[in-house]
Amino acid sequence: MKAETISIGTELLLGHITDTNAVWIAERLSEVGVDLYFRTTVGDNIGRIADAITHALTRADVILTTGGLGPTVDDVTREAVAQATNRDLVLDEELLAQIRARFAKWGREMSENNVKQAYIPRGAIPIENPVGTAPVFIVETEGKYVISLPGVPREMKHLMETRILPWLREKTGGEWIILSKTLRTCAIGESMVDAKIADLETSTNPTVGLLAHPGQTDVRVTAKAKTRAEAETLIAAMEAKVRERLGDWIYGEGSETVEEVVARLLAARNWRIAIAETNTAGKIAERLRARPEGARIVKSAMLLDNVTELSEQNAATIAEQLRNVAGADIGLAVLGTTNPAQNLYGEDTGQSVIAVATGTRTTRHAYSVGGINEQAQIWVSIRALDLVRRAAL
Amino acid sequence: MKAETISIGTELLLGHITDTNAVWIAERLSEVGVDLYFRTTVGDNIGRIADAITHALTRADVILTTGGLGPTVDDVTREAVAQATNRDLVLDEELLAQIRARFAKWGREMSENNVKQAYIPRGAIPIENPVGTAPVFIVETEGKYVISLPGVPREMKHLMETRILPWLREKTGGEWIILSKTLRTCAIGESMVDAKIADLETSTNPTVGLLAHPGQTDVRVTAKAKTRAEAETLIAAMEAKVRERLGDWIYGEGSETVEEVVARLLAARNWRIAIAETNTAGKIAERLRARPEGARIVKSAMLLDNVTELSEQNAATIAEQLRNVAGADIGLAVLGTTNPAQNLYGEDTGQSVIAVATGTRTTRHAYSVGGINEQAQIWVSIRALDLVRRAAL
Repeated sequence: MKAETISIGTELLLGHITDTNAVWIAERLSEVGVDLYFRTTVGDNIGRIADAITHALTRADVILTTGGLGPTVDDVTREAVAQATNRDLVLDEELLAQIRARFAKWGREMSENNVKQAYIPRGAIPIENPVGTAPVFIVETEGKYVISLPGVPREMKHLMETRILPWLREKTGGEWIILSKTLRTCAIGESMVDAKIADLETSTNPTVGLLAHPGQTDVRVTAKAKTRAEAETLIAAMEAKVRERLGDWIYGEGSETVEEVVARLLAARNWRIAIAETNTAGKIAERLRARPEGARIVKSAMLLDNVTELSEQNAATIAEQLRNVAGADIGLAVLGTTNPAQNLYGEDTGQSVIAVATGTRTTRHAYSVGGINEQAQIWVSIRALDLVRRAAL
Repeated sequence: MKAETISIGTELLLGHITDTNAVWIAERLSEVGVDLYFRTTVGDNIGRIADAITHALTRADVILTTGGLGPTVDDVTREAVAQATNRDLVLDEELLAQIRARFAKWGREMSENNVKQAYIPRGAIPIENPVGTAPVFIVETEGKYVISLPGVPREMKHLMETRILPWLREKTGGEWIILSKTLRTCAIGESMVDAKIADLETSTNPTVGLLAHPGQTDVRVTAKAKTRAEAETLIAAMEAKVRERLGDWIYGEGSETVEEVVARLLAARNWRIAIAETNTAGKIAERLRARPEGARIVKSAMLLDNVTELSEQNAATIAEQLRNVAGADIGLAVLGTTNPAQNLYGEDTGQSVIAVATGTRTTRHAYSVGGINEQAQIWVSIRALDLVRRAAL
């Protein structure tokens, strides 16, 4: 069953308020086995809402609209649904009585404009809204369904949970389990990850998607099945293939950060690290110190000024000497250029050299990335932490 | 000039990441005089993206897509635009050279899949992307424009600011100023506000929209003009009409809260308030104490248990006596039912009585709203603060 959501409201379209409804609905739909393929956002205009619904009817089986069911002049969803489904609006006396009763109970004066909330498209199934005044309705047209929900989140969620989702669940034949697992890589560009797993990305169940972040790329595996066990099996099989391709480019899972993994590794070995930074300005030490193991694993951290020689040899020497002087188990030296004009996308992208000394071995790398802007600092920090990770493994 | 934005990405559609791009673009478009009428969100599928573009071409003059221009298997915007505009993709040698050069400068290995980023729809105008690898392109078809931008926010914004917005500004004939002013009402239902200003809500410039919040309703007036002065004049004229209709239902402007306004009023008069609460559980005193004037204006605050008589007379007596005992200038008593089963939308909506004693006058009101859940507490708190406001004016 294919779905489309239509979020109605000029404030939504123009970004004055955030559309939390569409996101919530998207997640709930997947749980009942309904595939969401389009989300449209449109303002409070009958013609445009009708256009959106009409077009949605050509490509979806169930259309859920949110918003525009209030009593004000700008609430025109009823009119738009009626127009799009070629019918008129009729006054439902029972809905009107329910609205009157609710106002009477609140001891509040019912406005004439609230009467319009009792109008629904001819032939629509009305569903009383026990947590607001706007009744919900479902219009069936040519074997498809247009379901109109209130925009107020708590009202929409209540009606979805108690009436609409159970109804959809019956139509799709049951509950589906959707599970996801994220594998996190770093120090490898997104295009390189894609090159290594391109064929896996064409899988339809589970699906494999990439999500790029500064300095790192996530691989998300998502499976859909009737039981949790089946979904986990599908994910595990695909995870094995992804790991086979990406090996130790994968540093962690879920939402683990590089520093989280490094801190855990160092603490497990009872290792303490001494760090010397230039262009990253102390941010690498900060990342490690912020971890729960922070105080245990960071022996010393310093900032170096005036490093003129940006060579792998110099970085290695500094890392080894720092390790000795500080009495640490592992030394990290990050020497990068500090010219404010340098940035990842400019004429001059800068340079960095990073060295990690463990006592038995010193690894060193040079990169054509440097500078002191945030993007470059993140890029270099993640590379440095990854080198520490590999040295500690 | 009418615009539509198409946000491309399965992660966006399913709500795994927030679509900040569409909101940012919406705001920038209004500044250059382009009207945004639809926003569509669609996943990484050539057929569905093409469907969205094709339909957008029937109702907009300029279509802006974001996302799907990367080098991975899931990046299919190029193919979709080509399909929707009935043309093939061609390799642009100059774009390819630019991409190669950028990788060489970074000292990073260019992947074979990056080559696909140099393909653009035949006849498209390529625009180099100096802050990423994905070139941007504009396709002109039947007098309309499809502009494809990267999904990475900083890249998209840079290209919009430096290339696309200036280009659009030329096409629409100049800069527009969009100004908004919000008038805040409380203690009056949304439908009542709408009933009083319904004809004003049909205005097209300025526009007048309602935004409902728990216990209060905003009226937002938005004007569009060539100069700031013109926009301000339009807003002022409409504001005058709205104020004429709503009078002192309007308690403030912008983002002012009721407690903010009340605290300012009390401090200006050097008044101190003594508060006794039941079902609102101290939240009214909390709201006032949190204001900068808090310590100066709240003389005393207490919670009452076991108030059995919920009458206006009892509330008035408590407010007056509390004022005397505490030596305050104004006394507020809020007596409400405390049954956990009561809620705004249930069988039993509860009751409250509120009284405000100023020494010269005691006002009192009864409401069919009570209970201890958050919604009811907000509703009653705002009513109480509004009564204090009116007493202090």
